[in-house]
Amino acid sequence: MPATVNVTVWNEFVHEREHEEVRRVYPEGIHKAIASSLEKEKGFKVRTATLDQAENGLTQAILDETDVLFWWGHMAHDKVLDEVVARVKKRVLEGMGLVVLHSGHYSKIFRALMGTTCSLKWRQTGEKERLWVINRSHPIVAGLGEYIELPREEMYGECFDIPSPDELVFVSWFQGGEVFRSGCCWNRGNGRVFYFRPGHESFPTYYDPQICSILANAARWAAATVRIADICPNSPPLEPLAVSEKVREPGAK
Amino acid sequence: MPATVNVTVWNEFVHEREHEEVRRVYPEGIHKAIASSLEKEKGFKVRTATLDQAENGLTQAILDETDVLFWWGHMAHDKVLDEVVARVKKRVLEGMGLVVLHSGHYSKIFRALMGTTCSLKWRQTGEKERLWVINRSHPIVAGLGEYIELPREEMYGECFDIPSPDELVFVSWFQGGEVFRSGCCWNRGNGRVFYFRPGHESFPTYYDPQICSILANAARWAAATVRIADICPNSPPLEPLAVSEKVREPGAK
Amino acid sequence: MPATVNVTVWNEFVHEREHEEVRRVYPEGIHKAIASSLEKEKGFKVRTATLDQAENGLTQAILDETDVLFWWGHMAHDKVLDEVVARVKKRVLEGMGLVVLHSGHYSKIFRALMGTTCSLKWRQTGEKERLWVINRSHPIVAGLGEYIELPREEMYGECFDIPSPDELVFVSWFQGGEVFRSGCCWNRGNGRVFYFRPGHESFPTYYDPQICSILANAARWAAATVRIADICPNSPPLEPLAVSEKVREPGAK
Amino acid sequence: MPATVNVTVWNEFVHEREHEEVRRVYPEGIHKAIASSLEKEKGFKVRTATLDQAENGLTQAILDETDVLFWWGHMAHDKVLDEVVARVKKRVLEGMGLVVLHSGHYSKIFRALMGTTCSLKWRQTGEKERLWVINRSHPIVAGLGEYIELPREEMYGECFDIPSPDELVFVSWFQGGEVFRSGCCWNRGNGRVFYFRPGHESFPTYYDPQICSILANAARWAAATVRIADICPNSPPLEPLAVSEKVREPGAK
Repeated sequence: MPATVNVTVWNEFVHEREHEEVRRVYPEGIHKAIASSLEKEKGFKVRTATLDQAENGLTQAILDETDVLFWWGHMAHDKVLDEVVARVKKRVLEGMGLVVLHSGHYSKIFRALMGTTCSLKWRQTGEKERLWVINRSHPIVAGLGEYIELPREEMYGECFDIPSPDELVFVSWFQGGEVFRSGCCWNRGNGRVFYFRPGHESFPTYYDPQICSILANAARWAAATVRIADICPNSPPLEPLAVSEKVREPGAK
Repeated sequence: MPATVNVTVWNEFVHEREHEEVRRVYPEGIHKAIASSLEKEKGFKVRTATLDQAENGLTQAILDETDVLFWWGHMAHDKVLDEVVARVKKRVLEGMGLVVLHSGHYSKIFRALMGTTCSLKWRQTGEKERLWVINRSHPIVAGLGEYIELPREEMYGECFDIPSPDELVFVSWFQGGEVFRSGCCWNRGNGRVFYFRPGHESFPTYYDPQICSILANAARWAAATVRIADICPNSPPLEPLAVSEKVREPGAK
Repeated sequence: MPATVNVTVWNEFVHEREHEEVRRVYPEGIHKAIASSLEKEKGFKVRTATLDQAENGLTQAILDETDVLFWWGHMAHDKVLDEVVARVKKRVLEGMGLVVLHSGHYSKIFRALMGTTCSLKWRQTGEKERLWVINRSHPIVAGLGEYIELPREEMYGECFDIPSPDELVFVSWFQGGEVFRSGCCWNRGNGRVFYFRPGHESFPTYYDPQICSILANAARWAAATVRIADICPNSPPLEPLAVSEKVREPGAK
Repeated sequence: MPATVNVTVWNEFVHEREHEEVRRVYPEGIHKAIASSLEKEKGFKVRTATLDQAENGLTQAILDETDVLFWWGHMAHDKVLDEVVARVKKRVLEGMGLVVLHSGHYSKIFRALMGTTCSLKWRQTGEKERLWVINRSHPIVAGLGEYIELPREEMYGECFDIPSPDELVFVSWFQGGEVFRSGCCWNRGNGRVFYFRPGHESFPTYYDPQICSILANAARWAAATVRIADICPNSPPLEPLAVSEKVREPGAK
């Protein structure tokens, strides 16, 4: 893990401008709330980026300086530029961490990395959610008890159409009767991806101290990768090959 | 598993037309060789499709009648229509099996389902490959011994940039000094995906009885899924919710 | 999968003899209820075995004729003979399927195959359980809807101390606020193991048609393995080794 | 990860006393060679323990002070006391890391944690081994290239009878024609287990700088767990249960 983890918190930043009741909860935007909570922890250098900026705020230069990218989006998934999605995906596969939040499950970047529809059940009532820790020794749950509780959240329910997670960290219980794999880890290329369910824009979830602690843990986990240098893929043999005739290469790869 | 498994073998069918030494090995195309070997087994109904056909031979009607799709491509990955790739992907996520062969690792459809670059090392010399069985009880290895040997094949080497397979079935040893995860299973949506490494166009790999047996096993395995009906994702609560005020839905999902 | 699947349903058969309210639910024992439900399906040949029989009812001859063993135990885990546990474990690793039910999570055989404590939270009140399907294309959920509901069951809660399942099939929601990985698959050696949570002795769970359907599916799934012949482990080289001096074997393996 | 990682290197220490050619390679024992290499790295406090000591050198007090235990054994697996094995297993499940080396695959402790036979193929000739990195971003491969090469080692071949690893880090190529999953990670309870293949007693493998680097990385990885406090397993409901009659508890769990 780098001594300082460079975090970029990306938010589409539309709800907060268009909906008064969301602005009341996050007057400066969800990205600013998350950035503030991370800045209180040691070892992070945090910036934010939003959809309305040039290149959606995610230029190559900014991505090159980012160890971990947080992603919150919902209404405007389709407005994210395809070339920006390709750029972010390339950086994840090179080793950048990605933490996808809540409705980001339907973002272009998450679906491109998963290869599935990422669909789920949902109910926007505002009910109790209890996130149970499934993997008690995982770095992302450091400092927690056996569960955390959120008094009011949107419901997401199974079946969540994702590849089987490499590590399952949280499963949620909902008051209305559903369950959900709420904290899931995947390796993709040299990068690590964490999906974390809570965070509907109408509720003050990102001010919850336990949620903040999980986001900080997730950033540290997602940054803790190494990277081995790439090698020329067309490789001479390492062992002697006694082959009488070399086969002609019929087509280039 | 359906009583009869409807298989479609897709091939770009370019090498066999452009390169004399490939035509010598597969005069009617790789797809015909694979189709012939499957037709000798009970329980398959086989058709073929190629790149040069209308809609690349993969119309919605044909896909709807396909339980398992085999995919061989190499030189012409970029010529496959994006809308055909999207159609195939949708069918896989709905439950169609997909068996990706050899250089198909770089096909649009495989990369879209994996979310990674799917890059690897390679050497086109023609050397011995030995595929070791890693999972001895897997249906795909039924009837085999502890390894199979191919006297001359192209080399593919690690690191293969794929998501960790849900099941690892074969690992190859190459004479020139490399190893490779040659048989890998994934679940994607309701569908099953099997990647199988051997099958360079210059070598008679698809006439090898053990390779034919593995392809038939793979088709049966990929067809053996069930499918639960979809449900309206916006779900009313199953349990009573005593919530005083309903939250307004700020944006449509 | 064999044409006929030979199933042995093992039950410690103690609650039903000692507790009147359990006997009322399962007058002939849980094993007889499960056996009856399986016998109504095609393709099974079913017998039962109980703790009080010679060698706990699981002689080598009976195990040799068993494709899939069901296991229900609770009060008398410690009374199962260690040599019987070793015999069952050996058969699982050779390829016999094992379906462990409910309080069988603490059986000697399950813990020996898992390597962990298999501990969990529990509450014996009798409350609603809803089992959500997590893997919609898995053979074990064939014929189900997106969840099944049991009006009264014992609660089991996370964190369930098991190795990460090779496939997660069900997650339960409990009325009292907990979640649980209720249907889990593992490969162990050549054998398949399925743990299925429901089935407290006080409730008529094993008469529920959907539970019966899952048990039959699980038996078919657990029987669907192949087995490759064993090879002498001390292996001569397959490739020529030009090694000047043979190293003396300092100790026997 | 603790600021200082307390490592205990355990060795049966028999070959080095009984076989002159092993003593020539490891005059003070394999454990001392490994301990020396770890002591050169920052952040480790290292001690050793051997079979011939009281309680096999692994008293409760020593284990309580151990964050990561290395294990090398071969000739004398059966001489390790069963109560010591149980004690080590308990500590692993509580959160201690365990790094199992080479012929330790057949140790009581490894087999107890895996639940399988842990059998494999082998050949004691002394041939070239090349360990390919399969997971390029894993902390255990930090600082390596795409493979490491050992000029002479014992061969271990598939099929290695282990549960599917949670993470596969290395696969070996052997000169004589076999492959092997040489670096495998598992979570067991709160602990992490790493199996690392190389290290036959006749070869100077544990002096190789790249092997030493891997062992240090493995120790850091195995120590990097967290631990959530245990909770009383018999749990009162978190949500109100309107159940008319409490069910009598027929038997104690």
